[in-house]
Amino acid sequence: MAFIDLSAVRTIGVIGAGTIGSSWTAWFLAKGLSVRLTDPVASAPDSVRGYVREAWTALTRLGITREPLDAALARLSFHGTAADAATGADFIQENAPERAPIKRAVLAEIDSVLPGDRVIASSTSGFGVTEMQAEMRHPERLVVGHPFNPPHLIPLVEVVGGGATSEEAVQWAISFYNHIGKRAIHVRKEVPGHIANRLQVALWREALHLVATGVGSVDDVDAAIAHGPGLRWAAMGPHLTFHLAGGRGGMAHFFDHLGPAIERWWADLGTVEITPELRDQMVRGVNDEIGTRSFEDLVAERDEKLLGVLAAVTPKL
Amino acid sequence: MAFIDLSAVRTIGVIGAGTIGSSWTAWFLAKGLSVRLTDPVASAPDSVRGYVREAWTALTRLGITREPLDAALARLSFHGTAADAATGADFIQENAPERAPIKRAVLAEIDSVLPGDRVIASSTSGFGVTEMQAEMRHPERLVVGHPFNPPHLIPLVEVVGGGATSEEAVQWAISFYNHIGKRAIHVRKEVPGHIANRLQVALWREALHLVATGVGSVDDVDAAIAHGPGLRWAAMGPHLTFHLAGGRGGMAHFFDHLGPAIERWWADLGTVEITPELRDQMVRGVNDEIGTRSFEDLVAERDEKLLGVLAAVTPKL
Repeated sequence: MAFIDLSAVRTIGVIGAGTIGSSWTAWFLAKGLSVRLTDPVASAPDSVRGYVREAWTALTRLGITREPLDAALARLSFHGTAADAATGADFIQENAPERAPIKRAVLAEIDSVLPGDRVIASSTSGFGVTEMQAEMRHPERLVVGHPFNPPHLIPLVEVVGGGATSEEAVQWAISFYNHIGKRAIHVRKEVPGHIANRLQVALWREALHLVATGVGSVDDVDAAIAHGPGLRWAAMGPHLTFHLAGGRGGMAHFFDHLGPAIERWWADLGTVEITPELRDQMVRGVNDEIGTRSFEDLVAERDEKLLGVLAAVTPKL
Repeated sequence: MAFIDLSAVRTIGVIGAGTIGSSWTAWFLAKGLSVRLTDPVASAPDSVRGYVREAWTALTRLGITREPLDAALARLSFHGTAADAATGADFIQENAPERAPIKRAVLAEIDSVLPGDRVIASSTSGFGVTEMQAEMRHPERLVVGHPFNPPHLIPLVEVVGGGATSEEAVQWAISFYNHIGKRAIHVRKEVPGHIANRLQVALWREALHLVATGVGSVDDVDAAIAHGPGLRWAAMGPHLTFHLAGGRGGMAHFFDHLGPAIERWWADLGTVEITPELRDQMVRGVNDEIGTRSFEDLVAERDEKLLGVLAAVTPKL
């Protein structure tokens, strides 16, 4: 089935106004789209407007939008049910709580009112598309569109189809996200954690192992990334980084020259189990690292650096 | 034994003028230090001066130095042997080829002429301190001071002591590197790959696994980092990132809330073997990712982004 033209998309139905739903809302508004939002929490309209207000400062500074906040907020409406929010929407971004019965009920409700030529994307990190689409009337238009927190700043969106998803829906979602300025990737198989979270936890497992075995303090292991490879990974992914590390011989030379050393290091990597002792050790270690900085200090420090990093690596907007 | 006062360090002996030695030289000069350099290759003086010239543009742009290049190069001298380069040096940064007999011979030569109150650091990524210090007269002053390429841009230095290294030498090296504007960490045990390379290859193993099993293209797996967690890791290390992801409950809440999901993801992570087939698949995939960009294009793109990232995350200089 043919899906709606990208250029015809004007209105997004956003389901759920937690952090992820609020952040998606800010991005959609910044791209000139209208948002129909629903959330059962009574204070949701206030909290979303507050979130968008803060996000707008960053989005303005990054040059993503030049629109006054009030003009943008005039395109945001609140609705009592998922069906209401979906009515008239050209695309759905679902961010309901990560509990299977809730996800299924919400998706069924949207599915029943939304024309079949509209794609539904779920922000889920934990559920597979195949399990969520089982009872849908139009299962072929359901995808995962998994953002990275916060979606209004981090470009990555992971798009995954399920067993009953059409290839057209997957390609439409990828095109749509890219069309509105995100960087969508195609996760070609349903695997736990999609791609980015698997890479994150693969690194973190070794990071925990190094702390647990006394090789490095929590602070020093963090510094090993943030003052080392993390700086390079903001510029280029790991494959391309190693390709350039191979010099003019590129990836082939890198494998031939460093493959044996890397295989020895792989053989020595550890695993960990999340025990109460490890949890306590990590909580103490992070508190040592933080020192006297408050939660607000840390968030402000991260966001300030993140905005600078984004401005440095994003093609001019 | 007491080592020389940090404030008395004026002259660095740099052994080896490959990429790492040249880059270290640029950093030392930018910090106002003198460099006594040795390398058996006849063209080394020209190639080092050329490297420093290029690096100077970046170091000036970052605000690390305001000194004219020629004034800095007047503090760079070339010497025929490691013993000559070490004579009169207050600290040694050794970057000889990664072959055990060469390293041992060079270290013995330096050790025999350098007063016992001076620390010797090796840039090695592959050798342990204990094996390198076995035949030294003053083994207690040998450490690994492992930089991240290129050392004149990436702040991280991993300091490791061996079985015969004194705690004073380790602490002196950490203090010295921090004193001259690097971010030194203490690797408390001799493990293959120190810390940062272990974290890098832990992530890369899963990245290769995802490509090898068809979950994502080379391009998309790279994007999953560079447009996702890589942006956050340039701002903060993985532990602190997850601490903030736990909200006000911090790391404790993060473990309690997401620990089970992470353990499921860990259980599904893969391993790979570097076969000729995987090597060829990666070479093809990286070439697809690169498209029509030349090697020079890619290096320029990476360096431009890296300079922007560094300017964004580095405390104002």
